[in-house]
Amino acid sequence: MTTATREYKVVGTRPIRHDGADKVTGRAVYGADMNLPGMLYGKVLRSPHAHARITRLDTSKAEAHPECRGVVTSADFAPSEPVGPIAVLGQMPRDNVLVRDKAMYKGHAIAAVAATSAHAAEEILSLIEVEYEVLPAYTNIEDSMAEDAVAIHDTWTNNPDLPGGVNVAAQEEYVFGDLDAGFAEADRIFEREYRTKTVHQGYIEPQNATAWWSPDGRLTVWCSSQGHFGVRDNTARILGVPVSQVKVVPLEIGGGFGGKIPPYLEPTAAILSRKSGHAVKMVMDRTEVLEATGPTSGSLVRIKMGVTNEGKITAAHCWMALEAGAFPGAPLAGAASAVFSPYLIENVRIDGYDVVSNKPRTQAYRAPGAPIVMYCTESLVDEIAEALNIDSVEFRLLNVARQGDRRADGVMNGRIGAEEVMHAVREHPHFSAPMEQVEGKLRGRGWSMGFCRNNTGMACVVANVLDNGNVSLVEGSVDIGGSRTAIAQQFAEVLGIPVENVNPMVGDTDTIGYTSVTGGSGVAFKSGWAAHEAAMDVMQQLIVRASLIWDTDPENVEYVDGVLQHKSDSELRLTFEEIAARLPETGGPVVGRANLNPGGSGGSYAANIVDIELDPDTGKVDILRYTAFQDAGFAIHPSYVEGQIQGGAAQGIGWALNEEYFMGEDGGMQNTSLLDYRMPTSLDLPMIDAVIVEVNNPGHPFGVRGVGEANIAPPLAALANAIHDAAGVRMTELPMNPQSVVSAIQGR
Amino acid sequence: MTTATREYKVVGTRPIRHDGADKVTGRAVYGADMNLPGMLYGKVLRSPHAHARITRLDTSKAEAHPECRGVVTSADFAPSEPVGPIAVLGQMPRDNVLVRDKAMYKGHAIAAVAATSAHAAEEILSLIEVEYEVLPAYTNIEDSMAEDAVAIHDTWTNNPDLPGGVNVAAQEEYVFGDLDAGFAEADRIFEREYRTKTVHQGYIEPQNATAWWSPDGRLTVWCSSQGHFGVRDNTARILGVPVSQVKVVPLEIGGGFGGKIPPYLEPTAAILSRKSGHAVKMVMDRTEVLEATGPTSGSLVRIKMGVTNEGKITAAHCWMALEAGAFPGAPLAGAASAVFSPYLIENVRIDGYDVVSNKPRTQAYRAPGAPIVMYCTESLVDEIAEALNIDSVEFRLLNVARQGDRRADGVMNGRIGAEEVMHAVREHPHFSAPMEQVEGKLRGRGWSMGFCRNNTGMACVVANVLDNGNVSLVEGSVDIGGSRTAIAQQFAEVLGIPVENVNPMVGDTDTIGYTSVTGGSGVAFKSGWAAHEAAMDVMQQLIVRASLIWDTDPENVEYVDGVLQHKSDSELRLTFEEIAARLPETGGPVVGRANLNPGGSGGSYAANIVDIELDPDTGKVDILRYTAFQDAGFAIHPSYVEGQIQGGAAQGIGWALNEEYFMGEDGGMQNTSLLDYRMPTSLDLPMIDAVIVEVNNPGHPFGVRGVGEANIAPPLAALANAIHDAAGVRMTELPMNPQSVVSAIQGR
Repeated sequence: MTTATREYKVVGTRPIRHDGADKVTGRAVYGADMNLPGMLYGKVLRSPHAHARITRLDTSKAEAHPECRGVVTSADFAPSEPVGPIAVLGQMPRDNVLVRDKAMYKGHAIAAVAATSAHAAEEILSLIEVEYEVLPAYTNIEDSMAEDAVAIHDTWTNNPDLPGGVNVAAQEEYVFGDLDAGFAEADRIFEREYRTKTVHQGYIEPQNATAWWSPDGRLTVWCSSQGHFGVRDNTARILGVPVSQVKVVPLEIGGGFGGKIPPYLEPTAAILSRKSGHAVKMVMDRTEVLEATGPTSGSLVRIKMGVTNEGKITAAHCWMALEAGAFPGAPLAGAASAVFSPYLIENVRIDGYDVVSNKPRTQAYRAPGAPIVMYCTESLVDEIAEALNIDSVEFRLLNVARQGDRRADGVMNGRIGAEEVMHAVREHPHFSAPMEQVEGKLRGRGWSMGFCRNNTGMACVVANVLDNGNVSLVEGSVDIGGSRTAIAQQFAEVLGIPVENVNPMVGDTDTIGYTSVTGGSGVAFKSGWAAHEAAMDVMQQLIVRASLIWDTDPENVEYVDGVLQHKSDSELRLTFEEIAARLPETGGPVVGRANLNPGGSGGSYAANIVDIELDPDTGKVDILRYTAFQDAGFAIHPSYVEGQIQGGAAQGIGWALNEEYFMGEDGGMQNTSLLDYRMPTSLDLPMIDAVIVEVNNPGHPFGVRGVGEANIAPPLAALANAIHDAAGVRMTELPMNPQSVVSAIQGR
Repeated sequence: MTTATREYKVVGTRPIRHDGADKVTGRAVYGADMNLPGMLYGKVLRSPHAHARITRLDTSKAEAHPECRGVVTSADFAPSEPVGPIAVLGQMPRDNVLVRDKAMYKGHAIAAVAATSAHAAEEILSLIEVEYEVLPAYTNIEDSMAEDAVAIHDTWTNNPDLPGGVNVAAQEEYVFGDLDAGFAEADRIFEREYRTKTVHQGYIEPQNATAWWSPDGRLTVWCSSQGHFGVRDNTARILGVPVSQVKVVPLEIGGGFGGKIPPYLEPTAAILSRKSGHAVKMVMDRTEVLEATGPTSGSLVRIKMGVTNEGKITAAHCWMALEAGAFPGAPLAGAASAVFSPYLIENVRIDGYDVVSNKPRTQAYRAPGAPIVMYCTESLVDEIAEALNIDSVEFRLLNVARQGDRRADGVMNGRIGAEEVMHAVREHPHFSAPMEQVEGKLRGRGWSMGFCRNNTGMACVVANVLDNGNVSLVEGSVDIGGSRTAIAQQFAEVLGIPVENVNPMVGDTDTIGYTSVTGGSGVAFKSGWAAHEAAMDVMQQLIVRASLIWDTDPENVEYVDGVLQHKSDSELRLTFEEIAARLPETGGPVVGRANLNPGGSGGSYAANIVDIELDPDTGKVDILRYTAFQDAGFAIHPSYVEGQIQGGAAQGIGWALNEEYFMGEDGGMQNTSLLDYRMPTSLDLPMIDAVIVEVNNPGHPFGVRGVGEANIAPPLAALANAIHDAAGVRMTELPMNPQSVVSAIQGR
């Protein structure tokens, strides 16, 4: 474990977040809080069938209802081609927002209405007349990829170059080295097949949108999203209007985890506003969230690894089919980046399949793809180490990926922390703590690595220096997990001022320059970097101002620890506050600005150690102790890094043990409430001990790596390995709920 | 008359204003439109006496009212010293917002309450118990300056160095040359005394403020003002909180004319919000606006001029006493800048007195001070020219001020347009049109010069380039008269893009850098310049982006007419729209920024010609024809320049003929409604023919001079001169209403 050696005063500390008071007092404005004069309420009619052609859609009775102020169907959107087999990054298919002619999954939006109240809107929905021709529904990979499967997209035809059939949208393959030679080198070859189910991000706040389409054609949308610029771009495209006519105002967001990147309701609310001449608010209920927004893929994965008796991995192959849901876009690339990421493997092949089915279209979910495939690899690695009788840390360190090594998806590793995280695991007291067995229960310990490649993107910051030495900081990244403060800290550090003197806020799409989505763990990296650069811009301007006051060249002025200093006259000093008060007389206000799209975001490695107690009679797994490690590069605000580590682990635990889309014979999800779709609560988990490892990212001014995602990946294999340690069974299917665990034990 | 010779595509044209649709559809949000959840309503208890010590103030019964949510008195503000005799520029005296211990004028705010409705608030006001010791009130200059006058400010003592007595707050004097020698050189000396009354700006929208003081101490204020930064600074000072805790959100403004620069209700609403824990809205009624906001000074002015028989002015003296109202701050400096501004006078003296009285504290009003004193000078100049039998244009041209001449207040003239405006008057058909007399009426023609020195100040612009080639432009100047568009035009011109592709908006005090008030005709100058500079910043960044695409040095790229061009390869071209779409791949978004405080705003000269018809029996003056000239430097949006010219002339006509604070014996204004305070309506005026003169201001990139004010100055003397032309009487007191005109004619 390395730690940052530079001396900082603001970054690396734990100040109270700037939005804290607003949030604990309930004053922060979320989407459901919107209230505009004359506002109407919109509701969506959704398909009761998982796959059905619409043979008749008659909205006339609905429109005649006295409280009805507008009805929208797909015909109101801009014309577009039917969705093809290639997913376009960041694009929400128009046909997923409102059905074109065929419902592709249960809950797929057919039409929507606006009315004077939400209750009236629901009543009016019942007046819309729809006739369906119900079609067979595919809700798992085997059915979608079956040889005799029918294309669920009418326009797709069989591509003879593409194995897997008419419902495979895309295949990605990554091949490096010589796989056959690699396996030939191996003393032993291991191969396993794994399955995981569709799971949902489970954010607390349902999707929402309020739209106002003004008579002069300008559309304003207020919504909770992970990226208001992306919502703007998608909404403009679906409506067929230029982006410059659409303004999206970001409200606070009650969790996203990747699921709130694209718009769902926004284009619909916009049309209803245009038709009614009023603002229209739409808020989903929980069933709509689960049935009709974007969970992550269920999967079928086969991992094959060859190793020498000494523990060297000579070759590895991953075959993975990930469910896309109704429209293409399974996280193949994210999975490929992660599947073998902790290891250097010379001979490697990945075959990935993006498979459509009659389920809601998948969306990003925290380290998209990584948990699925790392569950498989890290289960198999544990099995291999055991078979070779090599300590599992030792086995991993024998193969650990380092700077300059090639990752299986072809990315060359920069300075990475895989090795440091493995060392941190081995040196942690939890790893070597004795495990006390108790009567009638099975106890065990497991661990696993995790990884997220981390993204970057465009980011802008504008900083206004106030005359009392405070700074108003406008940035473009939606704040999900305290990033206002992490960005302000980086700004304050550069200028040597207290972070409390910086007032960060998220600008709307008209106010701040394009800033890419809050996702890919990119915000502290990219917007933090922009804050760093804006602060440097302010500093340069202040140096010029001081040089005017001191009648000298700017070269003779330096800025150290928040103080401007004449280099050759030590009595000439001006603090940040002092120069701030003198801006009017030296040329006017000072506005710092940064607009960038930085590379070098750097992947982040994680690891989890878990102790479990398993009831052999019921199969229920209780977690006794949990330690989660992650390389943060440099932790700007350690509390929020710890929060991300804990949050990721908690979601991974739910995915591992409980969560799944339980699909009925009708092709619909059966457990569409949070009582039935069972996420872990605080009562289910012990305190998760978060350990921050800091391998500075040389690609960032403060060494930051994104920390938001990697920790969702380790819990799946860590728990599978712990169950094996406790009960001697290898769980190759998720969730490892009591029923499946007890079956495995009984079948042992 | 000179006109701009440069070839422009956007500036100088007349596009539809960006906020037009919002305003004509009623969607634009003004202060009275504010509506927040749980919002309360505030009302103010005002003094019924013009001068009264408060001997008892008991709010307990009011506080006990079931609908009462808070009561505020002066004691809730930050401690401060009583107001001294020196007015601080831009500062609203705390004691003018709420009475400290003595009501200084009728309508002075004593206390305020917040309640669940406006009606309840009014009822609760009646429960506040106040006992007054009524004191004598001074409501004119003679009384305030009388030898035996008592100081209306308890803490002021007689300053033996300051002539005029205890109620003179300040004296300003400007002396250049040798006045006695100048008068000795003169063949003839003319001297007159003039009086003008207190008049009000008469904006349509009453003052308003909505405040929300959050539990974490941050105060947000929504209001209609001419400068949200000034409102913020004043409110923070009066409340005793740092400016960084106060955010002011500018709403649309329904006229200001100088009267909406300082806060009146904001600090009061803020305290009521802090006490109640709710947002509090306060809106004045018309009586409150007239009684308790800031009109401009009544005055007593003596002008003395010496001339040779050939028409050369050898010396001039102005003695002026301007009413400040209850607290110091009469527009002495503005008056001094204007009084002799069209002329070069070597020997000159100005004595100005800032005189307090028991009337509402004066505030800026369009070209503050200029109309008062130019009425006097331009009346006297007309009289002198007639006496010398010299054509009045000829007389003025003989003495005209030019570049390099010294103005009477010591400012050296830059490139000014006094001469060009005089030529424009002489050459205009109106000037030489025959005047047809009709039976039973008296007809006459008069003309006058006008002037405004024009201010500048700090200004910021941030420009976000959207990927479709549109631009979101955030600026800090409140838009009163179409300045969003005039600023956007200057931005668009630099980049060679259509102004319709620029979306200008006014940022709040946290979003945009400090921008000084919308006043002094400074916005098109300073914020327009900032837009020019921000566009240059964008252009430089785009040149770098193109150089990356073309793999060349930025020096090899030029930007001409909206197109980036490789200097040595004519086939390499990128339009603004094309490069905008390629920003992500070349380094991220482009944000242009400007923060400046430019000098060289340049004074603006105006002139008016008016034809009147006067009923000798009633004294009523009807305007038959009106032509108004003004040097705009360069007219960015000629329609809005014409609008400013027309609006200024209309206000000057009201001031000249009708408007006055009619003071009763109780010291209170008697005509506190717009039925009784009679401003001209469209039925009272002919179309005002606006003539734009363009003497480019070399101190601005496009040659702009401020145009908002100068045209209020000429109507007063133009009408007085026209009345003299018609009826042979010199009107030396305003308003020249029927009663005073008929008296003058009868006394002839």
